[in-house]
Amino acid sequence: MTSPELSRLCIHTITNKPWPIETAVEEYARAGIGGITVWRDALDGREPSVVRKRILDAGLAVVSLCRGGFFASANPAVRAEAVRENLSVIRQAHELGAPHVVLVCGADPKQPLEDSRVQILEGISAIAGEASRFGVRLAIEPLHPMYADSRSAISTLEQANDICDLLDLPEVGVAIDVYHLFWDPHLPEQIERCGAAQRILAFHVSDWLTPTRDLLNDRGIMGDGCIPIRTIREQVVRAGFDGQIEVEIFSNSLWASDQRRYLDRIIDAYRRHV
Amino acid sequence: MTSPELSRLCIHTITNKPWPIETAVEEYARAGIGGITVWRDALDGREPSVVRKRILDAGLAVVSLCRGGFFASANPAVRAEAVRENLSVIRQAHELGAPHVVLVCGADPKQPLEDSRVQILEGISAIAGEASRFGVRLAIEPLHPMYADSRSAISTLEQANDICDLLDLPEVGVAIDVYHLFWDPHLPEQIERCGAAQRILAFHVSDWLTPTRDLLNDRGIMGDGCIPIRTIREQVVRAGFDGQIEVEIFSNSLWASDQRRYLDRIIDAYRRHV
Repeated sequence: MTSPELSRLCIHTITNKPWPIETAVEEYARAGIGGITVWRDALDGREPSVVRKRILDAGLAVVSLCRGGFFASANPAVRAEAVRENLSVIRQAHELGAPHVVLVCGADPKQPLEDSRVQILEGISAIAGEASRFGVRLAIEPLHPMYADSRSAISTLEQANDICDLLDLPEVGVAIDVYHLFWDPHLPEQIERCGAAQRILAFHVSDWLTPTRDLLNDRGIMGDGCIPIRTIREQVVRAGFDGQIEVEIFSNSLWASDQRRYLDRIIDAYRRHV
Repeated sequence: MTSPELSRLCIHTITNKPWPIETAVEEYARAGIGGITVWRDALDGREPSVVRKRILDAGLAVVSLCRGGFFASANPAVRAEAVRENLSVIRQAHELGAPHVVLVCGADPKQPLEDSRVQILEGISAIAGEASRFGVRLAIEPLHPMYADSRSAISTLEQANDICDLLDLPEVGVAIDVYHLFWDPHLPEQIERCGAAQRILAFHVSDWLTPTRDLLNDRGIMGDGCIPIRTIREQVVRAGFDGQIEVEIFSNSLWASDQRRYLDRIIDAYRRHV
């Protein structure tokens, strides 16, 4: 049973990576959490429609499918393959009942960022029709500039807004992740801009630890770092966002810890810091 | 003897951290390099005026002293101590004959970035008079957003330009480091803005490796990563910068390697990629 207080809380399967999705669903439901965001690796060897039923039967909402994208490459064959892959991700999201797919847009260290950005526009354009047909929206997630070499040439919310404006497609919006964006002095005004365009599809939380020992897998639980999460949440809500708040934490040390106790800490941190 | 071809090349003492500064001066001079930027730890136990003489006698220029700053703290006593420390750094730069001090502005994870930014303005204001008296300029160096938690609340060249405009002091300018700024889509226009205000005091080069294994000490030699260094150098030169090009590389693996061979690689990389 979802608890009213936790009905807006969603957790990404990757946050509790050691748990198979069946365990995650069971544990989240028992804790009263409202939703789950599914990472594609959690679907390995499973039918998305079967997973969907299991999630819904447990009383959880399917919030999102993570992740598509990676449109940028100096190699045209790789770009074409990325488009094919994203078309299949869209169908997977539809079968899973996920209203949107999060896009990590991609970057290739072998070419200028400007080229990657053009290819990202082309890639999203190429899959937007399929997204529309299946009723699945696409959430561009700007990634922290420390991933600009190989993961995302879209580093700021301003860039994501610019792409959305250029594409001007109802199925394309943004995912706002505090971990990637908290440092940006233009964040408040860009959140407002997102709101005015009604394009905030997702809101992700975690925290930035000091020191951060690993570029990828050393995120913290909300409240353990320096991100003003509540301030940003208030900005996002003021901009009209009323969806679930998604906890997305990659952490070698937390993955190595007891997952049930970790889940309790997440819930406590959600109450106190989000 | 400085070689004409290498007269614009400067190396930071920290780049060859295993060498005491006396060795660095001797090796840079023998290689024909034009200048040296001195990190304060390289002065430990030495008189700046003696080091100055040794550098000039070897035919090198003193390009900069690294580094002052760290003005931000939730603790007022720490902020006051930072101002005192920076006043002594300015006098040290004067004795060393360094025309400017690089400022890493600081950030405190215990307070909002907005507070750190106000304290940075106050800190620079508090030391600008002393800088003017000693004829030492202050170069605000925006740091990569991955250091926004604890090292610099100034993450973009736009922010550095904004501070310079606010302060409007002839002794305050900026240091442009490709490692910190290459990802920023607004970099070209902000370099132009620096140029129009004649405030580019320093230009630092290194490269971003894929993968980067450490947030602090895994920079690459120019050409080994994804940064379009020559493109950015051309923008900086077009903006009127005619100073030395400074190689600032922090790298656990390069520090562990043969320093003379590493210096040869830097010189080769400078010729080919800068």
